[in-house]
Amino acid sequence: MITMKLTITKSSNFKTKPDPSSLSFGKHFTNHMLMMNYTEGEGWTSPQIVPYQPITLDPSAMSLHYSQSVFEGLKAYRTEDDRILLFRPEKNFERLNRSSDRLSIPAVNEELVLSYLKELLLLDKEWIPTTEGTSLYIRPFIIATEPNLSVAPSTTYTFMIILSPVGSYYAEGINPVSINVEEKFTRAVLGGTGTAKTAGNYSAAYKAQVGASGLGYSQVLWLDGIEKKYIEEVGSMNVFFKINGEVVTPALSGSILEGITRMSTIELLAEWGITVSERRLSMEELYQAYEKGELEEAFGTGTAAVISPIGELNWGDKKMVINNRQTGDLAKKLYDTLTGIQTGKIHDPFNWTVEVN
Amino acid sequence: MITMKLTITKSSNFKTKPDPSSLSFGKHFTNHMLMMNYTEGEGWTSPQIVPYQPITLDPSAMSLHYSQSVFEGLKAYRTEDDRILLFRPEKNFERLNRSSDRLSIPAVNEELVLSYLKELLLLDKEWIPTTEGTSLYIRPFIIATEPNLSVAPSTTYTFMIILSPVGSYYAEGINPVSINVEEKFTRAVLGGTGTAKTAGNYSAAYKAQVGASGLGYSQVLWLDGIEKKYIEEVGSMNVFFKINGEVVTPALSGSILEGITRMSTIELLAEWGITVSERRLSMEELYQAYEKGELEEAFGTGTAAVISPIGELNWGDKKMVINNRQTGDLAKKLYDTLTGIQTGKIHDPFNWTVEVN
Repeated sequence: MITMKLTITKSSNFKTKPDPSSLSFGKHFTNHMLMMNYTEGEGWTSPQIVPYQPITLDPSAMSLHYSQSVFEGLKAYRTEDDRILLFRPEKNFERLNRSSDRLSIPAVNEELVLSYLKELLLLDKEWIPTTEGTSLYIRPFIIATEPNLSVAPSTTYTFMIILSPVGSYYAEGINPVSINVEEKFTRAVLGGTGTAKTAGNYSAAYKAQVGASGLGYSQVLWLDGIEKKYIEEVGSMNVFFKINGEVVTPALSGSILEGITRMSTIELLAEWGITVSERRLSMEELYQAYEKGELEEAFGTGTAAVISPIGELNWGDKKMVINNRQTGDLAKKLYDTLTGIQTGKIHDPFNWTVEVN
Repeated sequence: MITMKLTITKSSNFKTKPDPSSLSFGKHFTNHMLMMNYTEGEGWTSPQIVPYQPITLDPSAMSLHYSQSVFEGLKAYRTEDDRILLFRPEKNFERLNRSSDRLSIPAVNEELVLSYLKELLLLDKEWIPTTEGTSLYIRPFIIATEPNLSVAPSTTYTFMIILSPVGSYYAEGINPVSINVEEKFTRAVLGGTGTAKTAGNYSAAYKAQVGASGLGYSQVLWLDGIEKKYIEEVGSMNVFFKINGEVVTPALSGSILEGITRMSTIELLAEWGITVSERRLSMEELYQAYEKGELEEAFGTGTAAVISPIGELNWGDKKMVINNRQTGDLAKKLYDTLTGIQTGKIHDPFNWTVEVN
């Protein structure tokens, strides 16, 4: 019988939780995971929470060959009074379905999968670290599973959620990074998959990332794929600049990921009376602002780091040192406010957080 | 001990071979497969042929999340005198390594993996179908296996080869197809991964493919990602046009796959005294040639179909019926010659075929 009732099989083999002080990103996983399968004609059925374990796939499973897969990333936080908070999780599942649409993957019921996530979190609640800056990273993802080498959408899929306790993105607090402007490789282009959180976008960026690392930069700033002039993203984050008092971020051009931290940053700034200009911004314009001393701050926004200030931008033979390689006031205030809301330390006037209980 | 000596574990559970007349593409797999693992610091080690079986992956395996994976496609043929022939297999493994380089995947030893493929083919020789138009499709692929959600190259990989008996691409012989020119979605752009056979390129194309199917077209013709003017590929094939006696194919622009059938077609035509013009070709130019009655033939080239004549091209509100929807003389001669060489039916003056024994 097809059922959408969640079944739970508890793990009897509890793993040792990692030391919170040694947590990195995405290397430790909790005791349980969620799985749900899709079959053409039946839809998504039989959601189940099972012990965290390897999955088996036919070697011809379509996701391995043609990358028909999408994912999301969000975090759960444990508050000082031991509540579990999620940050705008409905936005993640909305985006998951948008990504799936782009990849010809069937949509999930957003409310149902959020309810399953909550069950999973309650079961592995003890894995949510409480140390300053730590959290439980949540990775929902969908993979095509049909054993078939035809280049066509799969008729079967698996939706999963796995959980990973992660450390503070900044070992010593929020810290500006150095970024290389990538002029050769392209992340995404209009008509491509840049707005979707799909697997192929990420490994496609490794070559540029490895090149930047070799030059001593921690991330890449991506330009548009057509004219190689306009700023798109930085690493796997959206990017903001404060230029002569104005906050500017690249408009969602059709090749930029619609970041939820980006959206929250814009809404938070609006609340503070600061209108963000979402528009095209060329490197040339940015450099001219820099030369005039008007480039006051630059920072990335994303789930992993929340706010990541940029201390240096390298564009070919031009080097821009921003705000003396110090975290700017605006980046600091955004980071403190967003993480404060996420962890329940400060009042959430937007009702962004969702309590799990 | 680390060894590059191939170990073979024979299957004891022999599957029933599919009826050659019912063969489709990539749905049946032989009794054995090849696996070889890579670990940072050790390189590729311990190649083994094992019974065809599901693989196990950690749910956080990097290939599932970030699609760090590449593949190849080639075919084995059984000749009338029961020899096994491969078609330019060294070109496939060269390209595999080029794809891997783009995806930051470590290279394999091309000669060694070809020798492993030969062993695998000898073991599953009986699975090579002999009916006209059938063959054994060979799928080498590499997937990132490290259990880690960091967006960075994996430190572990698995290389595999699986084999699939496939039917004639044309149930009733070579048959022209109808193609829709895609104007919204983009396959690839300069600086992206278009020249690599990497998983992400393929599912990214599904949305356009599904759209074209809904309009009654069997494939999509891709335009360049920058100006949306110039012809790049058709479906997952390269494309050729015969215009007023001249054969034209899009130049390898940095976003087009370097097809081995494309290369062979160009070399074969040169042998016949026909120089292929590898250059930019816009839809506008093609349409003008069509209106002047100069568009004589159009066909795709690829491993699966070898030569796939195009009977109709739909470009927005403009419809081009090519050669009365009949297979052109040139396409037919190329198909007959290439498949003749591949199956050992005609002399191979180029030494393209490699015998497995």
